Amino acid sequence: MERSIRLLLAYDGSNYCGWQRQRQGEPTIQGILEEGLQIICGHPLTVHGAGRTDAGVHALAMVAHFHTQVAHPMAAFCKGLNSLLPPDIRILSAEEAGPEFHSRFSALAKIYRYDFFTGEIMLPSKRLYTGHLPGIFDPVPVREALRQLAGTHDFSSFERSGSRDLSCTSGRGAIRTLYEASCEPLAEIPQGWSLRLKGDGFLRQMVRIIAGTVIEIGLGKRPPDSISQILAIRDRKAAGQTAPACGLFLEQVIYPPAA
Amino acid sequence: MERSIRLLLAYDGSNYCGWQRQRQGEPTIQGILEEGLQIICGHPLTVHGAGRTDAGVHALAMVAHFHTQVAHPMAAFCKGLNSLLPPDIRILSAEEAGPEFHSRFSALAKIYRYDFFTGEIMLPSKRLYTGHLPGIFDPVPVREALRQLAGTHDFSSFERSGSRDLSCTSGRGAIRTLYEASCEPLAEIPQGWSLRLKGDGFLRQMVRIIAGTVIEIGLGKRPPDSISQILAIRDRKAAGQTAPACGLFLEQVIYPPAA
Repeated sequence: MERSIRLLLAYDGSNYCGWQRQRQGEPTIQGILEEGLQIICGHPLTVHGAGRTDAGVHALAMVAHFHTQVAHPMAAFCKGLNSLLPPDIRILSAEEAGPEFHSRFSALAKIYRYDFFTGEIMLPSKRLYTGHLPGIFDPVPVREALRQLAGTHDFSSFERSGSRDLSCTSGRGAIRTLYEASCEPLAEIPQGWSLRLKGDGFLRQMVRIIAGTVIEIGLGKRPPDSISQILAIRDRKAAGQTAPACGLFLEQVIYPPAA
Repeated sequence: MERSIRLLLAYDGSNYCGWQRQRQGEPTIQGILEEGLQIICGHPLTVHGAGRTDAGVHALAMVAHFHTQVAHPMAAFCKGLNSLLPPDIRILSAEEAGPEFHSRFSALAKIYRYDFFTGEIMLPSKRLYTGHLPGIFDPVPVREALRQLAGTHDFSSFERSGSRDLSCTSGRGAIRTLYEASCEPLAEIPQGWSLRLKGDGFLRQMVRIIAGTVIEIGLGKRPPDSISQILAIRDRKAAGQTAPACGLFLEQVIYPPAA
């Protein structure tokens, strides 16, 4: 019987070339997971993720699925798989999924978080998980900019130039909906802040380009009212810098209650 | 003119064999600092720290001092030194100290923090900075145990066997005073907890042995009222396991207002 197994997993992306398996044999999350699962299942398989995080990006709760015919108990895909994985990748849970479930196409929304530090000297124990964007930071214009970004827009200006996410084959082009966007202080780091974006999908590097742009606004390097213009231009050059990968976390993938 | 320079620094101890310079050339915080300062000052020197953290232990605010005759501006010992140091060691500030100041002997108290996680699966992005001690954890008996540890006691049972801190040459043996000891939830990690100990001095591995012992009490592996007995026995074997180094942070060193 063909089974579909759904995994919830977390990873520290610091030592990986992103989620997606590479031909050149560079270490990736997908590649490491597939190696482990092939040992457990005894056959080659593909692990499908809800999204493809870039090199250095972390996940607190990535969702993935794969198909197998082996009759192993579920613990094989959680405890068993964890025993084969390095400590920077952890399966949080595994469960049986329906045949119609697809980690990526069934997803309704994703939440990303971008943590950054605006002080001068980065605390060593936070450096691997926090973007360093020093300066005098004011969250008020950032919140105004995020209000302007929320809603449905063509986010071409916030997409890595020369790339186009495969999900765009759905015909929606660069149109995405940001349901929520906030900027709050990080409890554990003075001069640390966290952006949180919830949307129906994200273009390549979209969160990091939004983060880089609104942080420039918060640092006074860009006028607070420039968002509508940037959106209208539909050109990557109009937006700000891509914020460093290490501050980005995939925090949650949201599915319909039935999925 | 002989100058005494006082440094405040933070480090991620993950990749170091502790604070203290080793003869075998293994990487240590003191060794790396001395190498950098010797380049800046142009003469060999010794950096004296407020304490000697073990391999893998972190510091948020270690204090150290050294002597030199060079007339460099203070920025040379902060920004200048940071440019020579790896990103896992950062000078937070540098200032001129009086000739009577000694980072270790002038210290009135130190605060250590021990962060740990009691859930089953450790979050990858927290694994380098959080001890993993899984189980059903109850903070109530831990707080009672910490109340019994607070005050002035002979802490021989909480000292690494076969070791004796050099500060014991002061004649106080293993007698130390714990001014404050608390156990609070970690805001950013569900099932995460933080012990905070403020004392006039700490024996070798004392914080980690206290942490290991009281966490065993919180996990129900040791009776809550065993602290007075453990103290009375004055034997390392009476206490619990030494908690993993990665959860320990030197948080603050306290000096008299004048120092």
